[in-house]
Amino acid sequence: MINILRLSHVVIRVTDLDKARYFYSDLLGLIETEKDGDYVYLRGIEEGQHHSLVLKKASSAGLSYIGFRVAKSEELDKAKEELKSLGLKVMKYKEKGVDDGLLFETPGGIPMFLYYDMEYVGDSRLDFYKHKGVNPIRLAHVNFVVKDLEKEIEFLKKYMGYYETEIFLDSDNVKTVSWLTKRGDSHEIAISKSSKNSPGFHHETYYVHDVKDIIRGCDILASAKLWDSIERGPGRHGVTEGYYVYFRDFDKNRIEFFSSDYIVLDPDKWKTIVWTYDQFRYRSDFWGRPIPQSWLTEWVPVEDISTGNLKGWS
Amino acid sequence: MINILRLSHVVIRVTDLDKARYFYSDLLGLIETEKDGDYVYLRGIEEGQHHSLVLKKASSAGLSYIGFRVAKSEELDKAKEELKSLGLKVMKYKEKGVDDGLLFETPGGIPMFLYYDMEYVGDSRLDFYKHKGVNPIRLAHVNFVVKDLEKEIEFLKKYMGYYETEIFLDSDNVKTVSWLTKRGDSHEIAISKSSKNSPGFHHETYYVHDVKDIIRGCDILASAKLWDSIERGPGRHGVTEGYYVYFRDFDKNRIEFFSSDYIVLDPDKWKTIVWTYDQFRYRSDFWGRPIPQSWLTEWVPVEDISTGNLKGWS
Amino acid sequence: MINILRLSHVVIRVTDLDKARYFYSDLLGLIETEKDGDYVYLRGIEEGQHHSLVLKKASSAGLSYIGFRVAKSEELDKAKEELKSLGLKVMKYKEKGVDDGLLFETPGGIPMFLYYDMEYVGDSRLDFYKHKGVNPIRLAHVNFVVKDLEKEIEFLKKYMGYYETEIFLDSDNVKTVSWLTKRGDSHEIAISKSSKNSPGFHHETYYVHDVKDIIRGCDILASAKLWDSIERGPGRHGVTEGYYVYFRDFDKNRIEFFSSDYIVLDPDKWKTIVWTYDQFRYRSDFWGRPIPQSWLTEWVPVEDISTGNLKGWS
Amino acid sequence: MINILRLSHVVIRVTDLDKARYFYSDLLGLIETEKDGDYVYLRGIEEGQHHSLVLKKASSAGLSYIGFRVAKSEELDKAKEELKSLGLKVMKYKEKGVDDGLLFETPGGIPMFLYYDMEYVGDSRLDFYKHKGVNPIRLAHVNFVVKDLEKEIEFLKKYMGYYETEIFLDSDNVKTVSWLTKRGDSHEIAISKSSKNSPGFHHETYYVHDVKDIIRGCDILASAKLWDSIERGPGRHGVTEGYYVYFRDFDKNRIEFFSSDYIVLDPDKWKTIVWTYDQFRYRSDFWGRPIPQSWLTEWVPVEDISTGNLKGWS
Repeated sequence: MINILRLSHVVIRVTDLDKARYFYSDLLGLIETEKDGDYVYLRGIEEGQHHSLVLKKASSAGLSYIGFRVAKSEELDKAKEELKSLGLKVMKYKEKGVDDGLLFETPGGIPMFLYYDMEYVGDSRLDFYKHKGVNPIRLAHVNFVVKDLEKEIEFLKKYMGYYETEIFLDSDNVKTVSWLTKRGDSHEIAISKSSKNSPGFHHETYYVHDVKDIIRGCDILASAKLWDSIERGPGRHGVTEGYYVYFRDFDKNRIEFFSSDYIVLDPDKWKTIVWTYDQFRYRSDFWGRPIPQSWLTEWVPVEDISTGNLKGWS
Repeated sequence: MINILRLSHVVIRVTDLDKARYFYSDLLGLIETEKDGDYVYLRGIEEGQHHSLVLKKASSAGLSYIGFRVAKSEELDKAKEELKSLGLKVMKYKEKGVDDGLLFETPGGIPMFLYYDMEYVGDSRLDFYKHKGVNPIRLAHVNFVVKDLEKEIEFLKKYMGYYETEIFLDSDNVKTVSWLTKRGDSHEIAISKSSKNSPGFHHETYYVHDVKDIIRGCDILASAKLWDSIERGPGRHGVTEGYYVYFRDFDKNRIEFFSSDYIVLDPDKWKTIVWTYDQFRYRSDFWGRPIPQSWLTEWVPVEDISTGNLKGWS
Repeated sequence: MINILRLSHVVIRVTDLDKARYFYSDLLGLIETEKDGDYVYLRGIEEGQHHSLVLKKASSAGLSYIGFRVAKSEELDKAKEELKSLGLKVMKYKEKGVDDGLLFETPGGIPMFLYYDMEYVGDSRLDFYKHKGVNPIRLAHVNFVVKDLEKEIEFLKKYMGYYETEIFLDSDNVKTVSWLTKRGDSHEIAISKSSKNSPGFHHETYYVHDVKDIIRGCDILASAKLWDSIERGPGRHGVTEGYYVYFRDFDKNRIEFFSSDYIVLDPDKWKTIVWTYDQFRYRSDFWGRPIPQSWLTEWVPVEDISTGNLKGWS
Repeated sequence: MINILRLSHVVIRVTDLDKARYFYSDLLGLIETEKDGDYVYLRGIEEGQHHSLVLKKASSAGLSYIGFRVAKSEELDKAKEELKSLGLKVMKYKEKGVDDGLLFETPGGIPMFLYYDMEYVGDSRLDFYKHKGVNPIRLAHVNFVVKDLEKEIEFLKKYMGYYETEIFLDSDNVKTVSWLTKRGDSHEIAISKSSKNSPGFHHETYYVHDVKDIIRGCDILASAKLWDSIERGPGRHGVTEGYYVYFRDFDKNRIEFFSSDYIVLDPDKWKTIVWTYDQFRYRSDFWGRPIPQSWLTEWVPVEDISTGNLKGWS
């Protein structure tokens, strides 16, 4: 078991850094820590760490990796051994602001990064007059897609200390989506099962304090004529209870803004909420509003940590 | 020209008064003034008049009539003559709380009611602890459907003093929807053209002060398992700018909740906003979210004022 | 009777134009139409006219004049005669964007400006991504101070067509404050009686759509270290029902942001709401929160229209 | 070190159970689990445990005790020994829904209750149509008063695992208030130093999702004519960043509603925020609004766990 503290950051691939900065920072309000070569480092209002969303210039959209912070620096060496012993790809890796980290791939093939120490630049919590866009607070969760869902869940539970808060069953009562947490929010990780186009990355999500910020995101993007970017919502999820909206950037990477989910106060008393197929109507969108086909079928590929190239899809 | 003061109320047909009261009052928060026989009289928080929405027990859904208040009592006799001279059906009519009124049908066949004096019961503006549901403030506008749109607009302009704030053109640049106001809000009346199922009544709308109330309406209906009632939204209109959501009652009558539209400060400077067909994407929903087919094709019939029976549709 | 259409704009005196622009536009979000010499012209999001708030460079704070738009161009000449015949000071006057206007002083000595035509530049209603600060929508009302309250009210009623919506009585049951409207909002004008420091100008007010914008104004000013500018609120008024907050600029001119008041749907049925002295606790702030002494005793002087100099106070 | 999981509940003394139920449940929206004899058991929308606020009928206002949940059942026996060895009063105690618990007094004399298992009744998260009042979500924190602040902090740190997020210094640079957390919210506990009227209990706090709920609390209480109950706010705290409002019940017990504070993502990187005396203006209320004298000087006594009687104040 690797002692994970929390989800930390996401590195996504964009083809045009300036357009991406315009989207994520100028319009939506993520704070730019710095730009360095082919990378732009962004963070939320409440985040003091160097970055929680990194835009990496690349040939096409996709996930580079998902970063997690471990609870103690000793965990990194332990983790390297443990992951190796599981037959998973793992290698040392640095980022800007992080001198000591590990890149690895989960059983499902999702690239992840573990680290203990990241440069700290300070948060912008009380600088209200500088806040703009949707006032994104901090990274909330990630959502990815694998072929073998149960195996991936088992890995996250057994080796990263996550537990399931809620699940979806399909019409054969087989688990099709799982929500997991460690910190105690409704979830930090959501995983879907898909026989094709996996491994894949569906979206990362930022918390906002107020559903009004979610609404404002739609107003902002529409008035900037980016209707193609407004994919789904605003709505209320049944699963996790949160208010949501999903946007697509210029490369079709997907980002969610989210608010008002719950805290798992007593993990020992939490019975995993099981949403059956006959609850289909209101489990994803609590109001029963239809889900766009694009949201159900489109997501981006992930990188092979050895090459940095996107993994092909089957 | 009949000197109209404002849109006043709507009388709709419901098959089950108790279920309708549950929907409009218990869940959504319209205030019940009284129930009397086959009628339930409702109003908004800011409305002191006896009723702004009347639920009338009938065999099926539909519009009984739309009520307008005239500016002076003398207008009623004038109106009777004027409407008669236009060859329109007109007859004296009373409501509970209104001893002296006129029922008539517009050229398009929409039943309307004119009156000067309605019983006044007082508003609930400052009784915040009693407010519930979506905190509906007051009736905002009505939306109906006719065959000959231009003729209906001409009647409303010439004889009722309305003017157009915005219009939609179809792919042949023919006017297909018109928004009109007198009081100065973005609109009190919206009219669509349809060759079939007309005359018809699409919806009435109540103002709420806060987009949060619109959101709450969805939460309330969904948690009460009335997903069938949540038809469209929440969203932001391009035309009129307002935030909106559309619900359907147990008989499929449609009601909208609406907020944050504009005021026409200078009617003389207002150039009718023309939305062309190539703006289709964002003119109805500013965010470009798709419009449910039901919203585009379903609405209710209207009564024949002579018989009280619904007019058949062609 | 001068046929007034509506309250239009306010011209206030500031000692430092750049600091004032920073306050009203950069921080609070009023849109700058242009700067021209000693004047900065601002407007709200929904306003298409050239200006609704003008910052005029001067030696000290104060009101230059309050602008009203008349309903027809013919009203100006009529007004000039009528005002002259009442023995009031009146003179022709131009502003940037307004070639034909009248400056006059009310019986109480308040400088007002009447015009029919102002340059129209277009509104920013749907440019959501450009909106900032508190998202001020449009000028809502003005509040000024005179010695002889009843005389001023009589003038506004008889010659400008206003009517009283609400009043305060003091402990001797004498009217001490009056709220008046013409357009139908809760009020466009509020007048207080004061034996000293009159005539004076207490504040102008902008509508915002959402109480969240009122809150944000406090966050913005406080984070910009302008605690001296946050004078009173946020709160809810009993009189007029609106949510409010009052700020003071660098020269101590006062501005209010306001939301969720009512509409007078039936002026003929509206009984002036009389707040007696024993309702003191909740008539100004509905929640009974104390009123800062500065709000009760501080306001700015007004200009003498003949000289452009501030009138001395007695 | 007792392995505390989290703050759990508060038991306060009220003289009239029906009036208290009216205040906390009918008006403010806390959900009543049950009433049993002299006790009313309340909880928030997101809380599935039997109670988070207990109203206990007594001769006067005050704190009965603050409840904490331990992480494992074994902790109770460990705790009993540890607390005894520290010379603190400790005794076995039961509550309705809790068969096995420990009552003890901190060094400062604050009564606390430790337990592992409480009856679980289920939460009301998704029952939106039943939510009312301010939609209180869950117990957020408690605030109490002791003579020897440093000693109390040391106890909470060393024996209950809390750490300081923020502190206030007085004009002599001596610590005067401390905010502590374990779960990772801005704080679960705030402690003030006072030479008189200690030990005392200042308030407990419930989270709400939306600052609009905080505003609504004021509207609700004022419209129910309970202006005496609206003590301080709404405002934004500098310390903890949260939006707040403070109410007083019929016995003058104080409750706060709170929203939008921060999460301590990295406890190891968190440097305790030190607010010095020259930041007095904006450290408690970020907007610099004055603090009512009652808030600074009034709070309620606490019970002696041996007798159940209130401790006298010196």
